Amino acid sequence: MNFASDNSGPTHPKVWEALTRADAGYAMPYGNDPLSGDIANRLRALFDAPDAAIVLAATGTAANSLALACLCPPWGRIYCHDDAHIEQDECGAPEFFIGGGKLTLISGPDGQFSAQTLSDALAATASGVHSAAPAAVSLSNLSEAGTYWPLDEITAVVEIAHAAGLTVHLDGARLSNAMVAGGYTPAQVMATGIDALVFGGTKNGLPGVEAVILRDPAKQQELERRRKRAGHLFSKHRYLAAQMDAYLTDDLWHDLATAANDAAARFADGLRDAGAEMMFPVQGNQIFCRLPRAAHQRATAAGAQYYLTPDAPLEGDAHEMLGARLVCNWATTQEQIDAFLSTLKG
Amino acid sequence: MNFASDNSGPTHPKVWEALTRADAGYAMPYGNDPLSGDIANRLRALFDAPDAAIVLAATGTAANSLALACLCPPWGRIYCHDDAHIEQDECGAPEFFIGGGKLTLISGPDGQFSAQTLSDALAATASGVHSAAPAAVSLSNLSEAGTYWPLDEITAVVEIAHAAGLTVHLDGARLSNAMVAGGYTPAQVMATGIDALVFGGTKNGLPGVEAVILRDPAKQQELERRRKRAGHLFSKHRYLAAQMDAYLTDDLWHDLATAANDAAARFADGLRDAGAEMMFPVQGNQIFCRLPRAAHQRATAAGAQYYLTPDAPLEGDAHEMLGARLVCNWATTQEQIDAFLSTLKG
Amino acid sequence: MNFASDNSGPTHPKVWEALTRADAGYAMPYGNDPLSGDIANRLRALFDAPDAAIVLAATGTAANSLALACLCPPWGRIYCHDDAHIEQDECGAPEFFIGGGKLTLISGPDGQFSAQTLSDALAATASGVHSAAPAAVSLSNLSEAGTYWPLDEITAVVEIAHAAGLTVHLDGARLSNAMVAGGYTPAQVMATGIDALVFGGTKNGLPGVEAVILRDPAKQQELERRRKRAGHLFSKHRYLAAQMDAYLTDDLWHDLATAANDAAARFADGLRDAGAEMMFPVQGNQIFCRLPRAAHQRATAAGAQYYLTPDAPLEGDAHEMLGARLVCNWATTQEQIDAFLSTLKG
Amino acid sequence: MNFASDNSGPTHPKVWEALTRADAGYAMPYGNDPLSGDIANRLRALFDAPDAAIVLAATGTAANSLALACLCPPWGRIYCHDDAHIEQDECGAPEFFIGGGKLTLISGPDGQFSAQTLSDALAATASGVHSAAPAAVSLSNLSEAGTYWPLDEITAVVEIAHAAGLTVHLDGARLSNAMVAGGYTPAQVMATGIDALVFGGTKNGLPGVEAVILRDPAKQQELERRRKRAGHLFSKHRYLAAQMDAYLTDDLWHDLATAANDAAARFADGLRDAGAEMMFPVQGNQIFCRLPRAAHQRATAAGAQYYLTPDAPLEGDAHEMLGARLVCNWATTQEQIDAFLSTLKG
Repeated sequence: MNFASDNSGPTHPKVWEALTRADAGYAMPYGNDPLSGDIANRLRALFDAPDAAIVLAATGTAANSLALACLCPPWGRIYCHDDAHIEQDECGAPEFFIGGGKLTLISGPDGQFSAQTLSDALAATASGVHSAAPAAVSLSNLSEAGTYWPLDEITAVVEIAHAAGLTVHLDGARLSNAMVAGGYTPAQVMATGIDALVFGGTKNGLPGVEAVILRDPAKQQELERRRKRAGHLFSKHRYLAAQMDAYLTDDLWHDLATAANDAAARFADGLRDAGAEMMFPVQGNQIFCRLPRAAHQRATAAGAQYYLTPDAPLEGDAHEMLGARLVCNWATTQEQIDAFLSTLKG
Repeated sequence: MNFASDNSGPTHPKVWEALTRADAGYAMPYGNDPLSGDIANRLRALFDAPDAAIVLAATGTAANSLALACLCPPWGRIYCHDDAHIEQDECGAPEFFIGGGKLTLISGPDGQFSAQTLSDALAATASGVHSAAPAAVSLSNLSEAGTYWPLDEITAVVEIAHAAGLTVHLDGARLSNAMVAGGYTPAQVMATGIDALVFGGTKNGLPGVEAVILRDPAKQQELERRRKRAGHLFSKHRYLAAQMDAYLTDDLWHDLATAANDAAARFADGLRDAGAEMMFPVQGNQIFCRLPRAAHQRATAAGAQYYLTPDAPLEGDAHEMLGARLVCNWATTQEQIDAFLSTLKG
Repeated sequence: MNFASDNSGPTHPKVWEALTRADAGYAMPYGNDPLSGDIANRLRALFDAPDAAIVLAATGTAANSLALACLCPPWGRIYCHDDAHIEQDECGAPEFFIGGGKLTLISGPDGQFSAQTLSDALAATASGVHSAAPAAVSLSNLSEAGTYWPLDEITAVVEIAHAAGLTVHLDGARLSNAMVAGGYTPAQVMATGIDALVFGGTKNGLPGVEAVILRDPAKQQELERRRKRAGHLFSKHRYLAAQMDAYLTDDLWHDLATAANDAAARFADGLRDAGAEMMFPVQGNQIFCRLPRAAHQRATAAGAQYYLTPDAPLEGDAHEMLGARLVCNWATTQEQIDAFLSTLKG
Repeated sequence: MNFASDNSGPTHPKVWEALTRADAGYAMPYGNDPLSGDIANRLRALFDAPDAAIVLAATGTAANSLALACLCPPWGRIYCHDDAHIEQDECGAPEFFIGGGKLTLISGPDGQFSAQTLSDALAATASGVHSAAPAAVSLSNLSEAGTYWPLDEITAVVEIAHAAGLTVHLDGARLSNAMVAGGYTPAQVMATGIDALVFGGTKNGLPGVEAVILRDPAKQQELERRRKRAGHLFSKHRYLAAQMDAYLTDDLWHDLATAANDAAARFADGLRDAGAEMMFPVQGNQIFCRLPRAAHQRATAAGAQYYLTPDAPLEGDAHEMLGARLVCNWATTQEQIDAFLSTLKG
């Protein structure tokens, strides 16, 4: 009963098969093997971005930071949601890769912000040389609240950003889940006009691979240099490529995200039936809900693993409602869900 | 016939087994799984450094740069061989991780430098605030010329460095090969007094893992923060730990390095018999030799893959001797060697 | 009628005299002249910090950033008011000097924040390696709202910070005005326990000098290296030292700040009489008030120079109240004040 | 008898007059005063670079580093002489401003390198993502050996650099002395095709001002942002502008450099007569010569101040020749020279 993270789950068997295939025989290192060369083109086709600059990286933090460093100069400013992973969970990695930079936090419900909120934030930013220069906007899809961005809302943000001379980055650690939830395709995501995205695999059944996709082909060289100097160019790059090979083949990414989202939907239904209150709409593979402390204690005593929200008080009475994050992955079974739900009953 | 790099070879089957074991079931992410916790202690035991600060990273460039950033302030200076990987092959990664820093290059035969050369370089460095402050020394073992450092020479360098207030870093991308070649143990390496080392696995049969070991236990927190903000903390850290698990179990690292070194020794014998001139002593798994252009052309035509040294002229007559690097790995077979040697015969 | 900034006013004649004295004859460069050596000790005596690490810099941005870089590691976090100069007006200089870092913004009335607010912000910060590590607190005295910090409130902030393992920085661009307003001495400021302060001169009658004072004497070398590599070690350092010489002699800093504060107090009285509404208490040399647009237009038409607050709408009706910042300096005359006030009358 | 540095001498009286003029009355800060605006255009006219991006900075280290940061990306490489100030005397400032970067050292007599040497160094640099990318060339004029670059040699270097896609920076801390020595004009320097230069004032009679001139007008915004975030935008910028005003008016820079060069020429004649051996041609205001230890001891005993070259042994016999650097400035008198020469006679 580990619902702590989609990172806690296993790797899909087809990925192991691809890794085993890649391991057969010899291959030139540092991405000079045939498979690595092929993957970039398959990603370009999937996202309908035929000239895009693309690299693979092994972690989401690296992928986001590489992308942002290509969008934001050291004296620049990035607007993002105040719960964004790049602000809360990357220990200043974007600022490290950028060589400076400043994240300006904007708010909104369900882990998202509106185009109007962005517009207001831009208007409130001082111009001139004394203030970090507005450079980029970053949004997370799925958001940190587990919700997906409708395409028209992404488009609206892009339009505001571009009109102000800024570029837009999409943190897609859970982009597959978002696309399944929103019923849209990679090409449709790219068609919103975003300038950079991370297409995550690690949280969706891969050991560790993310694709960085920049619309501007002129950024390919910069992206590769930045990856190398950050220690993220793998000598045995074929093992990254192989993961992505499996992920793209027959749209495995879509199947895995569908399984995870479906599990979460069923889990959420069960939780609601058990009296839990949903904190945000459950659209992807993450559930944020409030449980009575007594239920939480029973679940934990039965071995369930998950995180409480940071604001949950350590102590209190049995009826107090505590925020909890429960995450499903492609391998989550109904048995695991049922086991958890059964613990909730006092 | 791929002798381009030890990175070109396959992963050892025991490593796949360990990865498969790690994949069974669920595990907490970001190194909070039991195996990850265990690995650090096994490394401490192996190197007889019971308090050492330790993290795993997936690439040698990251591992070296993380270590150096913990040893050298942004205004510091690191002395290294002019062929050092950190100078030649990491696209400025040490300077990126350090946030500045300056590499001061010193020379010496066979990819090494003497304690006296270091001492002279220190004496020639201007003191005072106008000059980057001497902070650390870095040596590579195996060196970039494929030779191993005798323990007493490491000790001599450490003594000079420590006497001048500098720390010492050992780039051990091929440390296993060096230990096998020199007939010494991890504990003996640590006992030379070095302050930081990288114990490489990627070039020795693992998909991608290096251990960073800092003698000073007070550096653990800094090392972890630096790893995280560089995007090198893997969410599915168990897959790094599993590789190291296999590597440490029954001293697999030693077996693999022995196989690679032995293959190189046999290969070098054959090359000498075929008229090649060795550029450096062949002690580990790398061979640097000079071949006639005609032989090189035959080998290449037959499908052999390896790199010429950068100074090899693109064109010239058939008898011209060209520098070549030929690298063996744990899986190199006698058949591969013989096939290569047979192409040399005109 | 230039009330745009205390930077707009002239240099005090005694400072020119000191510069002329310093110019007589030859002096060793880079702070190796006798006067430069003397100044640090006089500052140590003034602040009763006999071992403090001290350097001079020519700008407030440099002085703040040098101090903060000595307090906060690249992966660290600094808590400051959301209007702080280091956040709003330095184009990311702290992040540049730190080599990363993150400013966490906290709020409070009159440009200040309470010890409780700081305590709450610390409690709300996630611990662990995923989040930038709390490292320092920065407060501005005078605040950006022109108010001075009572000593006991500084002490309360220091206690909270130290208890949590953080250090405290005081941006003292207008520290002289604050000390005059609060009736306390440099030694009393230091006795609050703060770890670093900038003692500003540029906004108080000097062409451009700020003293950086760090309590920890072990930071002297780091401070000097950081200053040099930022291009802030002046070859003709005696011209910085001479400014500080004049500033310290007979407490010129106190006289100049007294003159500026007194002018602002009289000016504020006149503004109130003319119907302006004070936005913050007028305690130092800065006045933040609301004027009818018509009055603002008359003042501007008459040649008055000052800034409106960023939220002031460009267009509106004549009665609309607009926020304005009016700054006095040591040389502000009653005639200038009266001339401005006379323009306000319709 | 202070010949330690041109930084040791006094400021020219016309500069004080200009500073006093600038101090009269009020001026808008941060370069928004009329004089600051005017200076950039006068510099553009002087260098016949009508669109050049220009800022003033107060130190040579800052000026060089700002220029280089606009030419070299964080993953780039700058070729410079191994005695260059940016390598030897700036404590890693270029790397700090660049956010990385690597200086590749090339050699040559008299502080200079030939176009051929540069070409060879470029050919020897590995291409590809593993190696810092060649980005710029930096030359110093006057060189660190006190010699001036002939215009055609600058042009030859520029042509090699541009053909390889690199830009060229000229460290002109003593550019006035070089132009006087070489008999060429600012416009002729710019016409060589260089992309960036620093026109120094600090070593030539100003308290502290250098102009940064970038040929590419698109760099103006970047240059200003970089200056601000490095703490080098002076609030009382008029005091920088006033220095440059005096410097440009009636070509004061030319008169001061002529005086300094002439003094050095006479001084060198006297030194030769006294048995000193010149180490490099004396073309500007710096003399590098070898003196017997006994003469050095007499000079020092008589109060003369100057630096020995770093290789001069601390102890030895009286006849041993020691390298010495003796620097003249605009104010050096024949009496000072004669006094020094008289001490040399045993």
